[in-house]
Amino acid sequence: MKTLTVALGERSYPIYIGAGLLARAELIAPRLPQSKVAVVTDSTVAPLYLAPLKRALEARGVSVVPITLPDGETHKNWETLNRIFDALLENRCERNTALVALGGGVIGDLAGFAAAVYQRGMPWFQVPTTLLAQVDSAVGGKTAINHPLGKNMIGAFHQPLAVVTDLDTLATLPGRELAAGIAEVIKYGLIRDRQFFDWLEQNVARLVQREPEALANAIERSCAIKAEIVALDERETGERALLNFGHTFGHAIEAGLGYGSWLHGEAVAAGMALAARLSRRLGLIATDEAARVSAIVAAAGLPVQAPELGLERYLELMGRDKKVQGGRIRFVLLRRIGEAFVSDQVPREALAEVLGESQVHA
Amino acid sequence: MKTLTVALGERSYPIYIGAGLLARAELIAPRLPQSKVAVVTDSTVAPLYLAPLKRALEARGVSVVPITLPDGETHKNWETLNRIFDALLENRCERNTALVALGGGVIGDLAGFAAAVYQRGMPWFQVPTTLLAQVDSAVGGKTAINHPLGKNMIGAFHQPLAVVTDLDTLATLPGRELAAGIAEVIKYGLIRDRQFFDWLEQNVARLVQREPEALANAIERSCAIKAEIVALDERETGERALLNFGHTFGHAIEAGLGYGSWLHGEAVAAGMALAARLSRRLGLIATDEAARVSAIVAAAGLPVQAPELGLERYLELMGRDKKVQGGRIRFVLLRRIGEAFVSDQVPREALAEVLGESQVHA
Repeated sequence: MKTLTVALGERSYPIYIGAGLLARAELIAPRLPQSKVAVVTDSTVAPLYLAPLKRALEARGVSVVPITLPDGETHKNWETLNRIFDALLENRCERNTALVALGGGVIGDLAGFAAAVYQRGMPWFQVPTTLLAQVDSAVGGKTAINHPLGKNMIGAFHQPLAVVTDLDTLATLPGRELAAGIAEVIKYGLIRDRQFFDWLEQNVARLVQREPEALANAIERSCAIKAEIVALDERETGERALLNFGHTFGHAIEAGLGYGSWLHGEAVAAGMALAARLSRRLGLIATDEAARVSAIVAAAGLPVQAPELGLERYLELMGRDKKVQGGRIRFVLLRRIGEAFVSDQVPREALAEVLGESQVHA
Repeated sequence: MKTLTVALGERSYPIYIGAGLLARAELIAPRLPQSKVAVVTDSTVAPLYLAPLKRALEARGVSVVPITLPDGETHKNWETLNRIFDALLENRCERNTALVALGGGVIGDLAGFAAAVYQRGMPWFQVPTTLLAQVDSAVGGKTAINHPLGKNMIGAFHQPLAVVTDLDTLATLPGRELAAGIAEVIKYGLIRDRQFFDWLEQNVARLVQREPEALANAIERSCAIKAEIVALDERETGERALLNFGHTFGHAIEAGLGYGSWLHGEAVAAGMALAARLSRRLGLIATDEAARVSAIVAAAGLPVQAPELGLERYLELMGRDKKVQGGRIRFVLLRRIGEAFVSDQVPREALAEVLGESQVHA
């Protein structure tokens, strides 16, 4: 087992990464303010991993309230959130009862937001079971639900007490979801670590084939980069915006097609290819570097083209991005592979050209 | 104008108290991250005070998005909250756009919670227009909505950038609402300041008659006590729970009768009389001290008896209080007038007796 730390003063917490961790209740139990937890999961993950986690906690005298929600991004909304509150109240969960989010990014975001606002905040743990959640959404304390007019529009920063990443859970992950997670892994190389990107180019096939050693390395490196950026800028007033590379386009794709049509990681993948092409179009990176971005995205089995929504619709959707300031859309662009920055100086013609050449029928 | 400070390190902020402050946009405008605000108010307050505030802000070049909600505690829920989000998104409010809550406690709690979670947190201001909001709910950063199973169950701590209390707004406040605010004023004397309580006994009639000098003094002293307690314990891990004097019973009354039947301050008033009688029953205070509590509550035109819900229903409702720990209800009791403390050592028989003798047909 590896242990990384998200260094946030009194809100610091460990990320545990290893095989068989679901059964290691000692990673959670000693941190509980009371011997009761609510485990929030979904109908896909529950049959696979709820029982072992529950058994391990109960063996340590912790009583477990399971809350199972429908699976999928379409359920990341008020209605599902209220189901969590109903269950917490019906089961007399207190503000010192801890919540455990067991699942992928949707469960982590949704259950984490519930934990942030239930009785004005209860302690919680992340137990991510998808690659995307393990490398990205479970680390850093961002929680949210979607609004029909925009992705992750309603949410909170609420750091967990620990992140427990059991690598064994990746064995049951559908291939499409695995690839979606690889998108975020590629992102870390692109924005921050050229050497890691080089390694990914050599090893992307091993990730797709789920070689445990390669996956462990990719997850550890991704978490280390994310932990470093979050420690520098917990509430996204600067640096942390770089983690949104590919996401300005990506969120527009998700909202434009309707949540759940493309996976978040798929939309981000296409968004990264677009952002690389935009960076090339603006003379920031060379043609061969943009090509390397598209090549690795394709090698992971991910889309490199955007669905056809029309330029105006893209502009409208991106105009609602949380990074918008003073009405100006802000893009994360590449200065080179391994170095990203934020710019609000993107001419409309450049966007039109990049989107025009990139849109395909969805 | 008086200025008090809520001392919370980098989250410190001023409370301005005085006449004519709605027109003093210089108390708000220089603190705005961008020259745009959303003003959230209700259908009762809007016709009275929206125009002067809007005019003053616009005169300083600030564009104003008004969001008017239906009035009343029954609307402090998800549906109304979502109306705020819809309006913010439709009007392209960004996470740096500020929100201004113009109204009583319901508007402050609801709009403040919207500000806490819209795009994971936007800056906001409190402009309280009821006595209750001016002395209590607008100070300290607590925001929330109700859940059918419990009052203020879903919420966040989110400190405003400033509180602007215009004493002139009390001129239009219905008498019943004024009395409800006096309940919280009495609370401060009871939990923290015997001398202030003595002053209140002498001056409660002047408050009911809206004598400006008496009101100003009561508001300033109440805000000073609240600011002091919040500075000691922002997130209610200790001291701050004392502010809940009368509220364990009060929240049960509100939820039990259905939100909006009794005003919050009315329920708290009866709750304080009950808590005083419970303190006497437990041998903590003398009979004449409990009688003084009932007498001042009655002198303000507030109820001293609880509505008849039955002991079991009271226990069930109070069992969902946010102060419950390990299944035990925690009560705020009086050691003497001017000194409160938290206890989870209240025998069921004492509760039964106090509730039994206190319940009246609602």
